[in-house]
Amino acid sequence: MEATPEDFSQAKSQLGTLKTDPGNQVKLKIYALFKQATQGPCNTPKPGMLDFVNKAKWDAWSSLGSLRPEEARQQYVDLISSLVASENPIQAAPTAAGGAPAFQTIVFSTKDNISTIRLNRPEKKNAITMQMYNEIIKALELAGKDDSVLTVFTGTGDYYCSGNDLNNFTHIPKDGIEQMAKDAGKLLKAFVSAFIDFPKPLVAVVNGPAVGVSVTVLSLFDLVYATERATFHTPFSQLGQSPEGCSSYTFPRLMGPAKASEVLLFNKKLTATEACRLGLVTEVFPDGSFQAEVWARLRAYAKLPRNSLALSRQLVRQVDKERLHQVNASEVARLEERWQSDECMNAIMSFFQAKSKL
Amino acid sequence: MEATPEDFSQAKSQLGTLKTDPGNQVKLKIYALFKQATQGPCNTPKPGMLDFVNKAKWDAWSSLGSLRPEEARQQYVDLISSLVASENPIQAAPTAAGGAPAFQTIVFSTKDNISTIRLNRPEKKNAITMQMYNEIIKALELAGKDDSVLTVFTGTGDYYCSGNDLNNFTHIPKDGIEQMAKDAGKLLKAFVSAFIDFPKPLVAVVNGPAVGVSVTVLSLFDLVYATERATFHTPFSQLGQSPEGCSSYTFPRLMGPAKASEVLLFNKKLTATEACRLGLVTEVFPDGSFQAEVWARLRAYAKLPRNSLALSRQLVRQVDKERLHQVNASEVARLEERWQSDECMNAIMSFFQAKSKL
Amino acid sequence: MEATPEDFSQAKSQLGTLKTDPGNQVKLKIYALFKQATQGPCNTPKPGMLDFVNKAKWDAWSSLGSLRPEEARQQYVDLISSLVASENPIQAAPTAAGGAPAFQTIVFSTKDNISTIRLNRPEKKNAITMQMYNEIIKALELAGKDDSVLTVFTGTGDYYCSGNDLNNFTHIPKDGIEQMAKDAGKLLKAFVSAFIDFPKPLVAVVNGPAVGVSVTVLSLFDLVYATERATFHTPFSQLGQSPEGCSSYTFPRLMGPAKASEVLLFNKKLTATEACRLGLVTEVFPDGSFQAEVWARLRAYAKLPRNSLALSRQLVRQVDKERLHQVNASEVARLEERWQSDECMNAIMSFFQAKSKL
Repeated sequence: MEATPEDFSQAKSQLGTLKTDPGNQVKLKIYALFKQATQGPCNTPKPGMLDFVNKAKWDAWSSLGSLRPEEARQQYVDLISSLVASENPIQAAPTAAGGAPAFQTIVFSTKDNISTIRLNRPEKKNAITMQMYNEIIKALELAGKDDSVLTVFTGTGDYYCSGNDLNNFTHIPKDGIEQMAKDAGKLLKAFVSAFIDFPKPLVAVVNGPAVGVSVTVLSLFDLVYATERATFHTPFSQLGQSPEGCSSYTFPRLMGPAKASEVLLFNKKLTATEACRLGLVTEVFPDGSFQAEVWARLRAYAKLPRNSLALSRQLVRQVDKERLHQVNASEVARLEERWQSDECMNAIMSFFQAKSKL
Repeated sequence: MEATPEDFSQAKSQLGTLKTDPGNQVKLKIYALFKQATQGPCNTPKPGMLDFVNKAKWDAWSSLGSLRPEEARQQYVDLISSLVASENPIQAAPTAAGGAPAFQTIVFSTKDNISTIRLNRPEKKNAITMQMYNEIIKALELAGKDDSVLTVFTGTGDYYCSGNDLNNFTHIPKDGIEQMAKDAGKLLKAFVSAFIDFPKPLVAVVNGPAVGVSVTVLSLFDLVYATERATFHTPFSQLGQSPEGCSSYTFPRLMGPAKASEVLLFNKKLTATEACRLGLVTEVFPDGSFQAEVWARLRAYAKLPRNSLALSRQLVRQVDKERLHQVNASEVARLEERWQSDECMNAIMSFFQAKSKL
Repeated sequence: MEATPEDFSQAKSQLGTLKTDPGNQVKLKIYALFKQATQGPCNTPKPGMLDFVNKAKWDAWSSLGSLRPEEARQQYVDLISSLVASENPIQAAPTAAGGAPAFQTIVFSTKDNISTIRLNRPEKKNAITMQMYNEIIKALELAGKDDSVLTVFTGTGDYYCSGNDLNNFTHIPKDGIEQMAKDAGKLLKAFVSAFIDFPKPLVAVVNGPAVGVSVTVLSLFDLVYATERATFHTPFSQLGQSPEGCSSYTFPRLMGPAKASEVLLFNKKLTATEACRLGLVTEVFPDGSFQAEVWARLRAYAKLPRNSLALSRQLVRQVDKERLHQVNASEVARLEERWQSDECMNAIMSFFQAKSKL
């Protein structure tokens, strides 16, 4: 099952063909896996504090610890494959009347009865921009109508999704902050509604850390598979905000208020194992075999009777649907107020200041 | 606590007095336990492939592995006792006006403030026929009105219940498949309603594997005790069908959608330990001491204040009662459609073809 | 972090300044910790059966086993501090118009953005009298309106709270038992409502065993931290009563009916670890470091944005609020009937008879 030296050579040459820069973080990971696969654990002296670039490379390599070279080779091949795949959708998305939708921030593809929506801003940890919200809504609409059996959500690169891109809040439009809050609220509401109303089994393949709204909507999925590397973090109150994605309703029901409050109110970051124990995640897999194991299972599931699955899913969801839409509306209304509050403004400013000091 | 050689002799002689054939599977188990108890682990050469009968007997004996002879003796005594008991109800059921109800597919008895309903088709793994649905509904009505404190549900033999007898779908009545689906739907709805409305604490003593509707209605019980040998399987989509027994509502609430979907949509079979961790089962017991431990506990519980228990139970159920009846109706309506679909017909035909090849 | 010999000396001298008797159980604990801290594990011969006082002291000392003297010293200092603090509220409660509320059964204090309500009848294991219900309602009203970020509930001494003081039922007023049941019901309903409507994050610091209504209302808290010594017991049916504190609704939703029934119907006492696994408790701490760890965390949480936390909490609660009030009303109506029943009267009489025999 492990990648052969030939796979490794091929991946290495594919790397040169990438058209878009995957971002520094992903490039450091590629560097580190390559070193580990060819030279084993990091054994060079630590560069000085001010030698930024070499220090970052050394840190990345060193962070792999005693990972076996064979496994590093496998992860290297997987990572490059995912980057290549993100530029070459396996199959074109169903074309809307008048031409295929041209997605720029996500990749939409269909194969083996499975439609896949992959967030594709690895250089920004797949943070969700305004355009991306709209593209995801459009892709869910297409997947809901095509003849696939399952729909899968995942991310390109090391992160699953780092949540709402806070830059969304830094471009105050000329209509002022009130209008900005209103527009952002409308978009968020439509985004969450697209998950509530989705008519087929929906699967999250959580390939790395997940933050904010990408965590909260997980409770609207049917299956959530996570690599052991994944973490789940909803730092709403730290940012002066409040819960969304129906989590104010779904999380306390899933794990009880005593556990949900730590996550929703007090910014506790969950490991994959903790999230699985609390019922947010279906199953956790070792990082090395994550993609292989999960996709093998999904291909098997995608052979089950299509209508039986879709109708069973709708039956399960139907009971709560009206309530979920009400909750979504309440949460968004509350957030629109929050976004205009001083508490929230100050918290977001602190976030950017802390970031610029790194 | 273990069965004495005298118990063993007595069980052996009781075996000859059984009036009904317990079926081949149970007879093989009796044979195997007898051999293990008297001669220890299987040590004879494996019969040839075509020597069907001796091969089956050898397999059964051999499957007991290194089970201690004393434990085999105990299980032998327990198994025969359960078969004898199923022919000799400890106490007659309360008589309806004009005579005792004559149950043919279940055994209904009352002792020590506990009414017991035992499914009694061990030769068919307690699969539920149309007659059996009706008899269970009748027995629940009697138990709800008698002066017992607890009502217990269990099965005769190795299985708890293998779910809906698929033969129910092979006798198409002259009114056609539409009428058949309508009749089956009406009966299923009444069956599930009898559990929703049951006015006293209801206990499942899950003595072996449970399948389909016998699993889904467990979430309408108050206590579910399972032997470690029990499994829980709801292969709805595999059979082209959809969830019933209110499970489309109760299972996601119990374990969260990420776990419930594996079970309800993707046919995952749970072990007793998994079902306990997910909250479907109250407690799991070693198979050897299962009956003794569970019944000792139930006899103690049955001494608690009767009205306090019944009223507390009703208080707990009342909150959801209306909602559960709505869910039951929605699930049955969906199933009536499913039963008339090609997907379902094909899946059931495949099931019988696979079975006939064994 | 451990208490110094100086802390120990100071605690010893503070002990003499207490104005109210902390009760025999607490005094025995103080004696035992002092012996352990100064002489190590109990090594004197066991007193005779009839030497009641010395036997009780020997038992208390001996029950500490091989607890390290340094840890005994720490626990001694903590215990005395909590007793002293209970007589000297750190900061006066906000004064109502016309003067500060004079609480006699609880201590209400505010510090570091945290308002604390501490049950203060250690000699009666913090059992809740009629006066105490009223004082807690009043304190919750004050805490809801003051400018604290978090509100904490805890108990003085070894117990968190032993539930409703059954002596509440022994003083039959001249208006008869019906009026008593009606009055008690009205008070209980107002008490539970105060938790349902509380507008800020509410934290339980469960410092020891919890019984009855003090357990059931925990599901209306946002965080529940428990020492490993804590237990959770709701013996309703044993006392001929029925569930309250919204537990007939919240407990089955939290842990599923199969687990909730053991607790609500069949009197199962949960350990802190079990309660944590079932979602009733957020986290369990070693007894020795419980107070230090919990308060350090709460002080950090109390620095989060105040409005964001309060609004998020209200969002979470809002969905269920109406339903919780309905459940509270149903539960109280059922209890008013129960309190007038023979089953309940007999059960309470048995309780007092058993107690007087000890």
